[in-house]
Amino acid sequence: MSGTSLDGVDVALVKYDEGMSSYELEDFFTVPFSDELKKKVTDAIDINQSNVALICSLNIELGYFFGEAVKKMIEKHQRLGKKIDFVASHGQTLYHQPISEDNLIASTLQVGESSVIAEVTGVKVVSDFRYRDMAVGGQGAPIVPYSEFILYNDREKQRILQNIGGISNATIIPKNATIQEITAFDTGPGNMIIDELVRHFYQEEYDDNGQYAKQGRVSETVLEHMMSHSFFSRPMPRTTGREDFGQHYVTALLDTYELPANDWITTATKFTAKAIALSLASFFVNDTDLIIGGGGSYNPTLLSMIQEEVPSFVSVKTQEDLGQSSEAKEAVAMVVLGHRTLIGKTSNVPSATGATKEVILGKITW
Amino acid sequence: MSGTSLDGVDVALVKYDEGMSSYELEDFFTVPFSDELKKKVTDAIDINQSNVALICSLNIELGYFFGEAVKKMIEKHQRLGKKIDFVASHGQTLYHQPISEDNLIASTLQVGESSVIAEVTGVKVVSDFRYRDMAVGGQGAPIVPYSEFILYNDREKQRILQNIGGISNATIIPKNATIQEITAFDTGPGNMIIDELVRHFYQEEYDDNGQYAKQGRVSETVLEHMMSHSFFSRPMPRTTGREDFGQHYVTALLDTYELPANDWITTATKFTAKAIALSLASFFVNDTDLIIGGGGSYNPTLLSMIQEEVPSFVSVKTQEDLGQSSEAKEAVAMVVLGHRTLIGKTSNVPSATGATKEVILGKITW
Repeated sequence: MSGTSLDGVDVALVKYDEGMSSYELEDFFTVPFSDELKKKVTDAIDINQSNVALICSLNIELGYFFGEAVKKMIEKHQRLGKKIDFVASHGQTLYHQPISEDNLIASTLQVGESSVIAEVTGVKVVSDFRYRDMAVGGQGAPIVPYSEFILYNDREKQRILQNIGGISNATIIPKNATIQEITAFDTGPGNMIIDELVRHFYQEEYDDNGQYAKQGRVSETVLEHMMSHSFFSRPMPRTTGREDFGQHYVTALLDTYELPANDWITTATKFTAKAIALSLASFFVNDTDLIIGGGGSYNPTLLSMIQEEVPSFVSVKTQEDLGQSSEAKEAVAMVVLGHRTLIGKTSNVPSATGATKEVILGKITW
Repeated sequence: MSGTSLDGVDVALVKYDEGMSSYELEDFFTVPFSDELKKKVTDAIDINQSNVALICSLNIELGYFFGEAVKKMIEKHQRLGKKIDFVASHGQTLYHQPISEDNLIASTLQVGESSVIAEVTGVKVVSDFRYRDMAVGGQGAPIVPYSEFILYNDREKQRILQNIGGISNATIIPKNATIQEITAFDTGPGNMIIDELVRHFYQEEYDDNGQYAKQGRVSETVLEHMMSHSFFSRPMPRTTGREDFGQHYVTALLDTYELPANDWITTATKFTAKAIALSLASFFVNDTDLIIGGGGSYNPTLLSMIQEEVPSFVSVKTQEDLGQSSEAKEAVAMVVLGHRTLIGKTSNVPSATGATKEVILGKITW
């Protein structure tokens, strides 16, 4: 899995049973992008810097990068006698156009060539999970709810899986749900705004342990401005991305308001928490676990701000509280999707993506 | 098949046997691009006009265009009770970087989303044939030699399959050859320069029946300039494309020399013939059929110029002389490749592409 946070590729080794009842994380690591590769990805997602030659080349270059990362995992475990069945690859999203507008039709673009991954690893690859959902009217996102349904569905409790990566997104799994009852949507920015501010003020990659957010004060003026973002008035299920809350958004804010560095970071963290709470407000019922995953779950200031913003009968937990891995969650989800594709089964969740029907996602490369 | 000539998508219905000995063309038509869609493709292949949003959207839009074209063919024949097993799609090439240079690594980019084709047609799709060959050090081109080997291999004669599309390329099949003895390479421009000149002077799409080329005179000065193109000094097997002989090349010529319109077209046609003859010179042996396919085979002026440039013991023939279809040839080749992929067999030709080994090409979308 290579997400919107652009920090590298997450590699998860997952043990599964053919009956599809259990997917168990055996090993996990992240291989960070080199500065050079990150620059290429950053250029390729930028409408003004990107061009066809760069995208053509980057698709192959990321294929090698992903392939080498996975190969490291495979070789480590083949030495232990384990058999590797397949690789599932999400790819790096370069662009996501959830609905048609102007000259662009609803579309998504992931790169990191599966043919290269298959050749480098010697293992068959399942990839490109989002396109088929869009071909049946879905937004191609979120992509993880099927996996979350398999892994977290509970007979006694509603569970909300709240992922906080570059952006934030939630999956609502009502108590004892069927797949048709799952809802999922993006809940706003994740670490994207916070990271951008920390890079701007401190030349660091993220707010380690929420230290800066802990020290500043919330600017109500700026917070109010942020809460007026058009994202909150879009119809559900809604999606967002770098085009809403990326560098351009942060630059415009910095040009409009003046605050001390930590007040900016505290306000952005509060905004991130409020966006999540507001997006989920109508779904909170008694006996709800709000389970935070993704990089944001390692930011205790953000977690306590989320707890402040939700009703007291909602328990904020982390993946680790449930014995799962927060950082590996999305990579594990790809394995679940890949397995479904290989056995010819559907794995989109129409109630989450807006698709008109369930379809088999992905492509297979031998 | 949607080729470098950017005129639309070719749809071939092919009847095949599981034993892979026969692939028989049953029906064929071309669905032309609308002016609007052609403009988008033209922008997307242009390094200065292209960007990530356009490429993202075009991949899906071409998927619908290809899917609808194929659906027309499928519905026509399903009404006759025929069973359609699979669709093979080449995709529209947006860029091809045969070898690594500057910041770009060896790569290729085809779009026309297979997931959309599969959804629109309801039939499984095999696509993306070029990438895996590049992953084993090949140039990803030419892609048709395996099919040509299957369809044209002859025990008594050497056969050279000379395709003249936007660019021109040849496959050499020695008498009674094995797959390892096949050679293939691009032989230079095809109709690309001629078409560009006809558009420039007459606002028509191509030199119908070679009429303009028949009326002009060859300028030896311009011809000599053209023959000094760096393409001819590249090592074999070599590839070329729009980046060598496209609009930029023609514009530069028109800026440098002044000739009457028909002299330009005659000189370009002569150059196209000479480029083919020169590229093939070392391969001509007694009992060689030079079988011309592609749009260029409908240009009798070009055909007679080719006959002038080759030794007299070489017989210039067309696909039609052999009972095959010139215009359908590349589309038929995709079916052969797709069939190989579905049964898990290799179909690149390392002696043609420079690949280090035979690999299974393509991806399968259910």
